Amino acid sequence: MGEQHRVVFSPSGLSATVADGTTVLDAARHAGADLDSTCGGRGLCGRCQIVPSMGHFDKWQIDSTPDSISDWTSTEADYTGRRPIVGDQRLGCAAHVCGDLVVEIPAASQVHKQVVRKSVDASGFEIDPIVKLHYVELPKAELGDELGSLAHQIQHLIERDFGVRPSTVEPRVLPQLAPAAKRGGNTVTVAVRRGETITAVFGGYVDRAVGVAIDVGSTTVAGHLVDLATGEILATNGVMNPQIRFGDDLMSRVSYVMMNPGGEVELTNAIRTALDAMIGDLVTDAGLTRADVLDITLVGNPIMHHVILGIDPTPLGQAPFLLATDAAVDTTAAHLDIDATNASVYLLPCIAGHVGADTAGAILSEGPHRSTEVQLLVDIGTNAEIVFGNAEHLLAASSPTGPAFEGAQISAGMRATAGAIERVRIDRTTLEPRVKVIGSDLWSDDPGFAADTASLDISGICGSGIIEVMGEMFLAGLIDVDGTIRSDGPAKTPRVFADGRTFSYRLFGDADTEDGTAASINVTQDDVRAIQLAKAALRAGIDLLCEHAGGVDAGAIGSVRLAGAFGAHIDPLYAKVLGIVPDTPVDRVSAVGNAAGAGAVRALLSARQRDEIEATVRDVEKIETATEPRFQELFVDAMGFPNTVTPTPNLATETELPLPQPKPEGASRRQRTGRRPRR
Amino acid sequence: MGEQHRVVFSPSGLSATVADGTTVLDAARHAGADLDSTCGGRGLCGRCQIVPSMGHFDKWQIDSTPDSISDWTSTEADYTGRRPIVGDQRLGCAAHVCGDLVVEIPAASQVHKQVVRKSVDASGFEIDPIVKLHYVELPKAELGDELGSLAHQIQHLIERDFGVRPSTVEPRVLPQLAPAAKRGGNTVTVAVRRGETITAVFGGYVDRAVGVAIDVGSTTVAGHLVDLATGEILATNGVMNPQIRFGDDLMSRVSYVMMNPGGEVELTNAIRTALDAMIGDLVTDAGLTRADVLDITLVGNPIMHHVILGIDPTPLGQAPFLLATDAAVDTTAAHLDIDATNASVYLLPCIAGHVGADTAGAILSEGPHRSTEVQLLVDIGTNAEIVFGNAEHLLAASSPTGPAFEGAQISAGMRATAGAIERVRIDRTTLEPRVKVIGSDLWSDDPGFAADTASLDISGICGSGIIEVMGEMFLAGLIDVDGTIRSDGPAKTPRVFADGRTFSYRLFGDADTEDGTAASINVTQDDVRAIQLAKAALRAGIDLLCEHAGGVDAGAIGSVRLAGAFGAHIDPLYAKVLGIVPDTPVDRVSAVGNAAGAGAVRALLSARQRDEIEATVRDVEKIETATEPRFQELFVDAMGFPNTVTPTPNLATETELPLPQPKPEGASRRQRTGRRPRR
Repeated sequence: MGEQHRVVFSPSGLSATVADGTTVLDAARHAGADLDSTCGGRGLCGRCQIVPSMGHFDKWQIDSTPDSISDWTSTEADYTGRRPIVGDQRLGCAAHVCGDLVVEIPAASQVHKQVVRKSVDASGFEIDPIVKLHYVELPKAELGDELGSLAHQIQHLIERDFGVRPSTVEPRVLPQLAPAAKRGGNTVTVAVRRGETITAVFGGYVDRAVGVAIDVGSTTVAGHLVDLATGEILATNGVMNPQIRFGDDLMSRVSYVMMNPGGEVELTNAIRTALDAMIGDLVTDAGLTRADVLDITLVGNPIMHHVILGIDPTPLGQAPFLLATDAAVDTTAAHLDIDATNASVYLLPCIAGHVGADTAGAILSEGPHRSTEVQLLVDIGTNAEIVFGNAEHLLAASSPTGPAFEGAQISAGMRATAGAIERVRIDRTTLEPRVKVIGSDLWSDDPGFAADTASLDISGICGSGIIEVMGEMFLAGLIDVDGTIRSDGPAKTPRVFADGRTFSYRLFGDADTEDGTAASINVTQDDVRAIQLAKAALRAGIDLLCEHAGGVDAGAIGSVRLAGAFGAHIDPLYAKVLGIVPDTPVDRVSAVGNAAGAGAVRALLSARQRDEIEATVRDVEKIETATEPRFQELFVDAMGFPNTVTPTPNLATETELPLPQPKPEGASRRQRTGRRPRR
Repeated sequence: MGEQHRVVFSPSGLSATVADGTTVLDAARHAGADLDSTCGGRGLCGRCQIVPSMGHFDKWQIDSTPDSISDWTSTEADYTGRRPIVGDQRLGCAAHVCGDLVVEIPAASQVHKQVVRKSVDASGFEIDPIVKLHYVELPKAELGDELGSLAHQIQHLIERDFGVRPSTVEPRVLPQLAPAAKRGGNTVTVAVRRGETITAVFGGYVDRAVGVAIDVGSTTVAGHLVDLATGEILATNGVMNPQIRFGDDLMSRVSYVMMNPGGEVELTNAIRTALDAMIGDLVTDAGLTRADVLDITLVGNPIMHHVILGIDPTPLGQAPFLLATDAAVDTTAAHLDIDATNASVYLLPCIAGHVGADTAGAILSEGPHRSTEVQLLVDIGTNAEIVFGNAEHLLAASSPTGPAFEGAQISAGMRATAGAIERVRIDRTTLEPRVKVIGSDLWSDDPGFAADTASLDISGICGSGIIEVMGEMFLAGLIDVDGTIRSDGPAKTPRVFADGRTFSYRLFGDADTEDGTAASINVTQDDVRAIQLAKAALRAGIDLLCEHAGGVDAGAIGSVRLAGAFGAHIDPLYAKVLGIVPDTPVDRVSAVGNAAGAGAVRALLSARQRDEIEATVRDVEKIETATEPRFQELFVDAMGFPNTVTPTPNLATETELPLPQPKPEGASRRQRTGRRPRR
């Protein structure tokens, strides 16, 4: 036995004693240190770059000197791979150990590296790849060898070169083994899933493993093509959900299925076709092929989740809203009619009949279950999903907000496109409004606004604008605590005018005539009522969870996170003015974007994240708002601005709340019973 | 806590202490005793029948009295299930424990029961079901229940009622859960695979789980429909392998693929279509449907195995004969384009490039790996597969016998159908033959033979007849040890006549003319040479294995088993006279029928049998005849009758061997070099 050297790897501190001349990569394997390699040490992939650390390391009693590592090798000199050798880093598979040595493994060279992807999710987490590529060189087979089989040979070489032994080969892959070996000149790259199963084979050396994470919303479908080894987003794509032709919202689609035998198959085909097309677009954008996609993760609400799997969603449209399954589902792209022959598919678990895999994704991304402080996570859509709690206990519920927040039941409501009013301020004295419009950076009282918006058709108010105009009308004293547009308004400003038996506010357009012109944009009493119903439903759900959690106070909530497109655009202050969220200090209220999609990306990149969300979801306490009598009471309480019964001391420090005003004479008192919107 | 009683189950001796009034079935569960039930104790299936044993049991210190078990219950009185209550047996789910009790569980009531199926395989083994049915009654779901999901509910009920918890549901089954529950009035029967996965769901109570075991031969495909709970064969079907249109034998089919791009797809489609049709015929015969088939096992030679899986067999047609995989393959009927939506498919492992899953099946059935004595297992076809050894060590090889044994290279050869000569005796003095023909029970010298065979077209010799006529010609001194038809034959009998430069023997038809008439059936010198080549190849393979096993002597072989249709029809004595098998005493040589198919049935009925054959195959030593120089020498030695070099002392006691005769003058010595048939 020749000379032995000790090699210590930082930052892990793992070490091994190896023979003189051992490669740094082999030493890392002996030590159990996390050093990446796809090519099995053949100087092709450039993933095993390391930094030799020089000096005396007291901690490990090592003198690491330039003589402890071999000189620049021909492998390194000849290296022309996709990842250039950075600075004076070395290839771990080429550099040899010549003496006691300390080696630093840069983050980029670790398999389990931290991910920071600002575009989807700010918080980092560790990649724990589901699928890894391994390159092997097959010996020339000769008659009489103890060969066993080609699969056996590949399995053996992976074990020899990478230290993992996949125990099985997908039957689908078996016919491809020999052709791939032939194409690759007796070399292949195989994809190994969870260290157990060979799920794809490519001829020759292949260096990029990609997957796709998709958030299937009722309205839009958003997908990311992701490098499975680095977490890098290679392409992003968003399309309308083609099921819209069967109904705008989920319940109208379920109705379609109830009325049309076989309708569930149409819904399934529509979404599967869209998913298939999206995969095609994503790989084309990234210059790849469908066969390169090795894994797919999906999130969606329970109805989307079921329809994708070919499950009739009818039971989710009627009590008791029983899911076919709430477990995570492992399947294949082929099973879902998606042309991505090498791809497995993972659907995150659902939580309850109205709380789906999208909420599971949001939990995984925002991490209330990893948090010591109490988190309130709300994803606002036609249904609002609410998650509340911390590492000790999580509760979840769904509230039937209806489509008002999306502008659907608002007279001047419109989608958030160019020309929509998205910001509103009302002068507390003159009661004159100023607005901002999508497509212009100017406020309506800025010089040049008219010119800047000349090409825009200012024709309605989008979701965030609706929230702001209602909040401002309340703060300016135009709306009472109970949501009535005050009948003394016309006495104060010509913008308030009688509109049948109630009053309206002219937000935009000619303010001189008594009734609205064609060009004017008004807020009516019915608009206010619609928003009241929506926000009361959401808030009642939140308050119900707070009560179930033992009466957690608004001030005790550490973080309020508004997920989804709507949450991303509303101003947290106005969310509080309307009482959409509890009276938690406004600096703790934030928008977190597409948290469901970010959760899908996490699940795509990490087996541990999958295990984590499955375990977490199992323990979530599900609250069914429809059967809780208390929900009705909280709903009624939540109808007022900000809330009929709960005080808002924090909000009072954040903005100037209107003084209580007496009811104007002759004001008709509307009923305040809890009219609940249809689910 | 009420009164407690001790219950002992025989024959296992397992016991439990249970509360008064516990059912015998529940007591068995507590004790861990093997008592079957599909309906979960609802008095529907009749599988849990037991015999209360009365008396004093010293061994267990129990007085078991008629008062220790409840009287006949209304459940038992009302029982009308498919399995009648036998004698004075009781339903374990209905009868209650009222005192200390000894209970006998009859074999038929055990899950792991012994199978004795005479039609396929005489030796019993224990059923260890891969797939089991469980019937559950779902509670009416109500809003606000902690339901989780329908799948979750079913999993929970199976755990509660049967003590196993399937952890997953096949994604394919998820869409069927709710419709099945609806059809069954909130009751379903589910199929659980390996206690882990729900692979099928039926509405209501279903009592019969069936599977199909198929042996895919090059020429014929044979399938059995089997009751998975009892091992009963419910239907049997055999068809020609439709690939015959691409070539009679395996190598011509591989050639077809080599010559015709896409030919491998045609071969795959042909066999898959045949398998699909066979499943259809089998379920129709048994009055079942395709959806009832829950499991399928397949055996076949390596080329059939690969073609079924859609793997191009070309590499198996040329050195180094490398399999794509030698492992057992678990897949689904859908993956193989077989319409049996609920069926998993298991292909037994292959052993080597020429030794396939059919040989694995034969090993599993005949059990050389379970045997202390040395077993020689031979499956004779175009290739002969040879397995040799015992529990300590097994060796396997394939020998290229060619199609002579099947009559293909024999001038008067024909298939074993009506009119074929299947038995031959030659009088040692007169040298006159007598024969038996398929379709008649009479010998040709019996009175009435002519009348009995008048309707038969006696036009050739089938495989067993060929073996016998050659053996008889040798025993009668008409053929020399080296296989030459002696030139002094015509001097002894008009049946031997000059036929060009060699001699022929007129076995059947007019013996008076010098040359054969149209009606006569002759054995030519070329016929003898063809059989010599075939039997020498087979025997050389056997002898090679004997040598590799350390020089095992013929007399030390405990059992010689001839598998397959050919093996079933040849007389072991003549197999020895021709030297096809070693000189083991003839009473140890036997035909074992379709051992490969019997192995497929075993694998269908038992998870342990699958584990067993996979472990066994891994350790088989593969001998490649083509690269062993010694094979050529043994081949030359084996050309003679019975063998040129190896003496046959046992055979000498079993029949009268011819005395050595001098070479007739002028006899041309044929070359005896090892002409090997093409693979």
